[in-house]
Amino acid sequence: MAANQGTGMDSKGFGIREGEKTVELPAKTDAGVYFIGRIHTPWTDRKDCPKNAHEADAVCTVELDPRFRDGLKDVESCTHLVLLYWMDKAPRNLVLQVPGHYGTQHGTFALRSPARPNPIAMSVVKLLGVEDGKLSVVGADCLDGTPLLDIKPYFASTDSAPEAVVGWHKHKDENADS
Amino acid sequence: MAANQGTGMDSKGFGIREGEKTVELPAKTDAGVYFIGRIHTPWTDRKDCPKNAHEADAVCTVELDPRFRDGLKDVESCTHLVLLYWMDKAPRNLVLQVPGHYGTQHGTFALRSPARPNPIAMSVVKLLGVEDGKLSVVGADCLDGTPLLDIKPYFASTDSAPEAVVGWHKHKDENADS
Repeated sequence: MAANQGTGMDSKGFGIREGEKTVELPAKTDAGVYFIGRIHTPWTDRKDCPKNAHEADAVCTVELDPRFRDGLKDVESCTHLVLLYWMDKAPRNLVLQVPGHYGTQHGTFALRSPARPNPIAMSVVKLLGVEDGKLSVVGADCLDGTPLLDIKPYFASTDSAPEAVVGWHKHKDENADS
Repeated sequence: MAANQGTGMDSKGFGIREGEKTVELPAKTDAGVYFIGRIHTPWTDRKDCPKNAHEADAVCTVELDPRFRDGLKDVESCTHLVLLYWMDKAPRNLVLQVPGHYGTQHGTFALRSPARPNPIAMSVVKLLGVEDGKLSVVGADCLDGTPLLDIKPYFASTDSAPEAVVGWHKHKDENADS
């Protein structure tokens, strides 16, 4: 493992902050993904992207490649969808991160940061409509042109956990309120 | 596109049923994923797997590769996690499917079937504990040894949508009740 505790920028322009740690990635990947479409959003610069879907109220367009469009049958009957997309600009070697808007160190798997070994983002979006292989959705938070990996129906019975708590984050919220 | 409307088995042993349709996949993949760990479950045969996480009350173990274990910092403070995993036994070329337990035709993106262009499954699990890079969870529904792609904290504020409806599925439920 290689540790990088210094400050500086990696090759993708992400800063490595004090308290962050990188690891050596495996020599090769284990499986391949297809980019099956693109997500069109109003955001063309990373600093303009909403920090999470809660702040993202813009209507975005998910454009599926024609090859896969038959797969949309019955998607229009869903009120909410899960989108998986590829954060192709993010570094993959960070295990400890200090997100700028928190300023504290957390493990990559306790964060929704795009920087992770497999930079697959997951967003729950509201579906407004489907037309010609294009889905109008609210709740995406990514850069314009982000590669799409998957669309799934959102089942409240298994996907909704309103009682869920992210302890470290809740603690920060409480501190912020005090 | 190639249509397969017949019955038979593909190379992975998944049956192609009447009403199902396959497409020709792109010649090559666009990006690679690392298998960062494995999910250990009680299920060693696909027919024994729960159909969804709602039916999955067994305690499963998510084992993260030592290389990435620093990334677990603060994960123990989460009550629920999102797991992404690679359904490596599933065919990737189906766009219309007739799941056996429904018996009706739906688009791949209206289903949670493991058969999809990128066979990435998403499950919301309850976290029971973390020890030595192993997470005890409830809610996984996959085969023993399934490759892990990602662990994310579940934020109720953005990930929980109790009001969500999958229209085609609700309709089936109503029919089943009548």
